[in-house]
Amino acid sequence: MKATVYVTLKEEVLDPQGDAVRRALRALGFEDVEGVRVGKLIEIELSAEDTAQARDELSQMCAKLLANPVIEDFRFEVG
Amino acid sequence: MKATVYVTLKEEVLDPQGDAVRRALRALGFEDVEGVRVGKLIEIELSAEDTAQARDELSQMCAKLLANPVIEDFRFEVG
Repeated sequence: MKATVYVTLKEEVLDPQGDAVRRALRALGFEDVEGVRVGKLIEIELSAEDTAQARDELSQMCAKLLANPVIEDFRFEVG
Repeated sequence: MKATVYVTLKEEVLDPQGDAVRRALRALGFEDVEGVRVGKLIEIELSAEDTAQARDELSQMCAKLLANPVIEDFRFEVG
C-alpha cells in the first residue's frame, strides 16, 4: 500500500527558503509570483493491508517523526 | 491563484534521505514501512488570472528552477 504525506509550514511561520525561491523566480522574469512556501512530500510504501490501520500508523509517524507539530502541519493520503 | 508543485526524485535515483527516514521509522517500531522517498512540495501564489497562462508559466518555472530534470520529475495543480 502506498501513502503520500504532505508536510507544510504553518501559516504564521516564516519561510526563508520559500522567500529565496520567490526572489529567484522573479529574477528569472516570473513577475506573477507573489509568494512561495516550500514543504515536504514523503512517499511511503507500507506492507499493511488494512487501510484503517495504515491511517492510524501514518498519523503516529507524522506526529513522532515526519512533521514538527510546533511549526508544521501535515496531511496524508493512503492508496 | 494558487498552485501546488510536486517534485519527486526519478525512480532510478537513489534517495539517501528517504532511506534514513525509513530506518528511523522502523527503529521507532513502524515495521510495516518498506520504503520511503522524500520530495518537495512547493506552494506558489500567482497574480495571473488566466489558468492556461499560469500552467504555461509553472511548466517553465519547474524546468528552469524548481526541479532538476536530470534526476527529478515534477507535476503541478493550479487552483
